[in-house]
Amino acid sequence: MSRYRIDLNCDMGESFGAYEIGQDRAVLSHITSANIACGYHAGDPNVMRRTVRAALEKGVGLGAHPGLPDLIGFGRRDMAITPEDAYTMTLYQVGALAAIAKAEGGRLQHVKPHGALFNMAAKDAALARGIAQAVASLDESFVLFGLAGSELVKAGREVGLSVAEEVFADRTYQVDGSLTPRSHPHAVIKDPTEAAQRVIQMVTEKQTITVDGAKIPVNADTVCIHGDHPDALTFIEHLLNAFRTEGISVKGVCQP
Amino acid sequence: MSRYRIDLNCDMGESFGAYEIGQDRAVLSHITSANIACGYHAGDPNVMRRTVRAALEKGVGLGAHPGLPDLIGFGRRDMAITPEDAYTMTLYQVGALAAIAKAEGGRLQHVKPHGALFNMAAKDAALARGIAQAVASLDESFVLFGLAGSELVKAGREVGLSVAEEVFADRTYQVDGSLTPRSHPHAVIKDPTEAAQRVIQMVTEKQTITVDGAKIPVNADTVCIHGDHPDALTFIEHLLNAFRTEGISVKGVCQP
Amino acid sequence: MSRYRIDLNCDMGESFGAYEIGQDRAVLSHITSANIACGYHAGDPNVMRRTVRAALEKGVGLGAHPGLPDLIGFGRRDMAITPEDAYTMTLYQVGALAAIAKAEGGRLQHVKPHGALFNMAAKDAALARGIAQAVASLDESFVLFGLAGSELVKAGREVGLSVAEEVFADRTYQVDGSLTPRSHPHAVIKDPTEAAQRVIQMVTEKQTITVDGAKIPVNADTVCIHGDHPDALTFIEHLLNAFRTEGISVKGVCQP
Amino acid sequence: MSRYRIDLNCDMGESFGAYEIGQDRAVLSHITSANIACGYHAGDPNVMRRTVRAALEKGVGLGAHPGLPDLIGFGRRDMAITPEDAYTMTLYQVGALAAIAKAEGGRLQHVKPHGALFNMAAKDAALARGIAQAVASLDESFVLFGLAGSELVKAGREVGLSVAEEVFADRTYQVDGSLTPRSHPHAVIKDPTEAAQRVIQMVTEKQTITVDGAKIPVNADTVCIHGDHPDALTFIEHLLNAFRTEGISVKGVCQP
Repeated sequence: MSRYRIDLNCDMGESFGAYEIGQDRAVLSHITSANIACGYHAGDPNVMRRTVRAALEKGVGLGAHPGLPDLIGFGRRDMAITPEDAYTMTLYQVGALAAIAKAEGGRLQHVKPHGALFNMAAKDAALARGIAQAVASLDESFVLFGLAGSELVKAGREVGLSVAEEVFADRTYQVDGSLTPRSHPHAVIKDPTEAAQRVIQMVTEKQTITVDGAKIPVNADTVCIHGDHPDALTFIEHLLNAFRTEGISVKGVCQP
Repeated sequence: MSRYRIDLNCDMGESFGAYEIGQDRAVLSHITSANIACGYHAGDPNVMRRTVRAALEKGVGLGAHPGLPDLIGFGRRDMAITPEDAYTMTLYQVGALAAIAKAEGGRLQHVKPHGALFNMAAKDAALARGIAQAVASLDESFVLFGLAGSELVKAGREVGLSVAEEVFADRTYQVDGSLTPRSHPHAVIKDPTEAAQRVIQMVTEKQTITVDGAKIPVNADTVCIHGDHPDALTFIEHLLNAFRTEGISVKGVCQP
Repeated sequence: MSRYRIDLNCDMGESFGAYEIGQDRAVLSHITSANIACGYHAGDPNVMRRTVRAALEKGVGLGAHPGLPDLIGFGRRDMAITPEDAYTMTLYQVGALAAIAKAEGGRLQHVKPHGALFNMAAKDAALARGIAQAVASLDESFVLFGLAGSELVKAGREVGLSVAEEVFADRTYQVDGSLTPRSHPHAVIKDPTEAAQRVIQMVTEKQTITVDGAKIPVNADTVCIHGDHPDALTFIEHLLNAFRTEGISVKGVCQP
Repeated sequence: MSRYRIDLNCDMGESFGAYEIGQDRAVLSHITSANIACGYHAGDPNVMRRTVRAALEKGVGLGAHPGLPDLIGFGRRDMAITPEDAYTMTLYQVGALAAIAKAEGGRLQHVKPHGALFNMAAKDAALARGIAQAVASLDESFVLFGLAGSELVKAGREVGLSVAEEVFADRTYQVDGSLTPRSHPHAVIKDPTEAAQRVIQMVTEKQTITVDGAKIPVNADTVCIHGDHPDALTFIEHLLNAFRTEGISVKGVCQP
């Protein structure tokens, strides 16, 4: 029996009307948690239903992936919303997906905010609390996914939710635990071997080496996979092989 | 104890962002069922929350009021959607409102489609079935509101839902039970006394006189009130007085 | 010198934010008129600018491709808009693209409505007139593209515009000159040789054989190419070869 | 003949579909420049046309009022857009309104960004430059309206545009020339007499007293009137009377 475990999550259901994006079906064979877009930054009701159905077929955990109301910007642009806005837009989007999941015979397992909403909630305690309260008021058994060590993770714990601390295989970290901005030359890790090594260290040693060479503690409950990359599947297979070798088992956040 | 009963419903929560519309608070004191817009034709998550809260305070039944995705047209323009579109957009919108209601400590009682979606579902059996199935798959105890005698009412019964047949106090009917189009000179009834008389006949005799003078049968479980009119409140009070005189009690569709 | 000429047009600029669709750059090498989406059914200001720039580089005529305000439905669903709506939404969208074209050093040559707006305007004289008047009020030198023999072509002529009658290489026609609905087994022509033959007959004989075997007159000023098909480029090359063999020269609608 | 002059501008055309906002017709009788919403933060093509027509009837200068793509937030929430986004969304919106103005027999005189776009462009030189370049590339005779002393005014001058420096009658200023944030107790001036006095000082002395009592220089080419206030018209009349008494003539920015 393996000593270590990790969840693999991926954003999906981000197609919209005639527009197709991502490799959802292929990725679903490898992950344990699906973050499904809810119509604000991406996704529409038909796409949401297709994605829920596909995830259920593969036994992948269903998660809501609420975003900012910015379809042109794919929810990646910061917007000056209030904590109340964050609260109500989370209720709205999670509720919409929960209904579709119910109609398909499933139920939601987790919530992970998308893009700029995820990033803002990592740093802004009031926004984080708005999101966490929305999730808790819908179902206390929902797991809240947030950047490891972030305000969102703290807010989730404060309102009594289970949280999953998320790490990125292909990004480096700064001393304060935040991701190195993409403008930095060493922000992104392209070598899959190096990426796998970094995740393994985070899982087994609960620490990582920052972009400046310092050691910082980190909890890695779940790894974010990017499915919209052409090499995404190769990258995932590389990670899975490395996990197998190291005795890290891949398990969903709600699996025993 | 009165022999006859009627529910009064009104569309509300149709403000959006900086835009205010309707006289929700004043109307809520008089009605028994609130049809709350869900963000497609009108409404936004903050408005939905405010409206749910106000309806709960007044003890008015909460209903979802899903519409077409046409904010510019306020959901009043027919769109060539498929039955699958109707099914998933109903799930989406009802689920979003149900979540907000739950967070406010309430729960939904009914669903009434809005505007063009309501009118199309009155005549198109496949669309009606898409909507009815969405409602039934979310909660079999939800009451589906539809035009009296319409395809939507039939579809609701077929999928096992309770239905409320809706009549209009201020509109005349044609021989087939449909509303006289607004282009017709006698489509709208402006005199509140005449309007009240017509509803009383529908409730007590289960029939009405069409615009052409024929008698047709009609079931009147609920009357639609238009809250966006300047004279709306006077009109409502007139109706309520007439009901009292005739011994018709105003009760919500789920009240014993 | 060739006796016959034809324009080739293709819808493009239909990407949106993070969503990519079509093979615009490849197709631009072969066509003479680009119908550029204007943000209602598809396209956004950045995409519009990129597309204008690419078309100018290839010397392809710039056209506005206004659609219905229905991004989820890609402008393909009929909506019950008024002639006034058609008039103002055409002004809005054409004006937006004209500004971007001007900033890039170009100017518009033509306007072709998209999808459901195109189809509705083929049959509904009042909508057609709304669109044609909008185009004429902006620039009397704009060429209006419409289905050959349609109400839109008539309306364009009535308001004094030059029109380009459009034919489809891959679709069959009915006796009244309308396209055979896609539900019909012989609606679509998949064999590129047959498709080319049909266009050649339309160009050189000004007539075509309907799906029922009748001969009907048709004017073919421009052929619509579908660029979102995987085989689109092979199909276009096939057409171009056939035109060359038959002595039909491919020329833009405004070329001498 | 009066020594001093001032332009009065007001945001309008901010209704949308079924939603009415503002007192456009009443305000148009008093102002010289109308900033007309262009469909992003408010307004739709039918509203734009009605507003252009009403402004032309009153002889008020037509201006485009481009905003962020945030209808729920009425364009008042900062969004992390790029200078390229600002450039193309300004072209798009100004072009759309210019087309409607042309169809109504008018032409645009000025451009004033709305809400958060206006505020961001006051401080962010790159965004300001994106907006200014868009305006200049459309028509070098357009006047760019920006906060007095702001980056937007500088950018306008740099690209060769005429600019109108805007002051607010009902707001106090800080030492750096920016508006005192609304969270400050003395941010807003409610007394119309005091408001008029402040504008008069700005016009006649080219300076103002900041919220901290310091004197700073300010150019006042145009005053912003808020038309959505219940007391808006009383406030305007008060201003106009004070201007008359002081010999300040109200003239549009393009009047001789």
